[in-house]
Amino acid sequence: MGDGQRKERILAFVLYPGVTLLDLVGPLEVLSKIGAPYRAVAVGETLEPAATSIPVKVVPDRTFDDVPEPYAVIVPGGSGGAIRAMADERLREYLVTADRTAEVMGAVCTGSLVLAATGLLDGREATTHYAYAPYLQRLGARFADKRWVRDGRYITSAGVSAGIDMALALTSQLAGEGVARKVQIGLEYDPHPPLGPIDWSAVDRGERRAWIESTMRDELARRPDLLRRLGL
Amino acid sequence: MGDGQRKERILAFVLYPGVTLLDLVGPLEVLSKIGAPYRAVAVGETLEPAATSIPVKVVPDRTFDDVPEPYAVIVPGGSGGAIRAMADERLREYLVTADRTAEVMGAVCTGSLVLAATGLLDGREATTHYAYAPYLQRLGARFADKRWVRDGRYITSAGVSAGIDMALALTSQLAGEGVARKVQIGLEYDPHPPLGPIDWSAVDRGERRAWIESTMRDELARRPDLLRRLGL
Repeated sequence: MGDGQRKERILAFVLYPGVTLLDLVGPLEVLSKIGAPYRAVAVGETLEPAATSIPVKVVPDRTFDDVPEPYAVIVPGGSGGAIRAMADERLREYLVTADRTAEVMGAVCTGSLVLAATGLLDGREATTHYAYAPYLQRLGARFADKRWVRDGRYITSAGVSAGIDMALALTSQLAGEGVARKVQIGLEYDPHPPLGPIDWSAVDRGERRAWIESTMRDELARRPDLLRRLGL
Repeated sequence: MGDGQRKERILAFVLYPGVTLLDLVGPLEVLSKIGAPYRAVAVGETLEPAATSIPVKVVPDRTFDDVPEPYAVIVPGGSGGAIRAMADERLREYLVTADRTAEVMGAVCTGSLVLAATGLLDGREATTHYAYAPYLQRLGARFADKRWVRDGRYITSAGVSAGIDMALALTSQLAGEGVARKVQIGLEYDPHPPLGPIDWSAVDRGERRAWIESTMRDELARRPDLLRRLGL
């Protein structure tokens, strides 16, 4: 790498098969606009198109090997995809290695479970999609029922769209509120959910439990250690 | 196609090179969850990976030819990409043809300009990214300064993230408020922008004008008719 590239601070968004694409794209759309010295990239084990939550495949622009020492790492979530990713050895190795030098380790939605599965969130305050909170807790994090939460170098968000709020907070942290406001305006992030805010008192947080646990049992069958930690 | 597929109502998200990926992925993440008889797909001229606003490429799952009569069409925006798309003959032809049978024609952000360039928004109330409002007006639509707006079969949203609000409104329309609430909860779309809402009194709506107009002049050089309509 030349001098110019050495000075760049790479914000590496981790891509894996089965990712929930809005978890990735919301924050990446925000953080790709903060300007030098930051550069947002998408990293995957390979440059092959990966299936996602929706009917498009995505191709990252870098491999794990291309970005050994990112400034920041963001792990998006995914339903079955994130559960499978918890047992993905190359991905786990990338996260643990990157953590040694990264200034920011982040996750969106069930991306927190992927981080937690490696032990990186042990004892830390963190959040995730509301339906997965008990599993984050069992993996060793202290679950915070917040839209997003920072604990030292670690920043995590609640489900899917919460990643946009987290990314704007991270933009303020890295580049200042002026830049964050400008990015927010550019994306017209002035949300007005047509049916209003979520009425959390009406949400059954355990509704997906049977599906989640049977998927974990299937996808993590070769990792009894993880299943044990998940209480399964 | 078999009988089962004939009964499907296809919601076709149009993909083109240079798309702003959040314009596509926000609404697609919403509308891919509304269930039968609806099926959200991404359609492109080809199945080749297309460059986007951010450092990932995306691959649609269908071609224009695969989906000749979608129930709904949604056109995402893109900065230079949408401007180029205004002159893309295959894309224009797809939109005009699909319009003959579609029950819903939608656009997010500068996707409205792509629709308007074909004449489909002539005289209709529509919206777009705030920086592009004058051009939408000049292309024949009546600009509405709203988060999203419906005029008969046509539904359009303001910039980028406004597509999520529009998609939830469309979900209510197609499948009922109960389904829309469920999708909203699943995506934890309970937004809390960390710096609060946008202060529109502080936004310079003309700030990008020089860039927009020079890009239009470059990208639409072969379409003097379009440049004339755009007042350039």
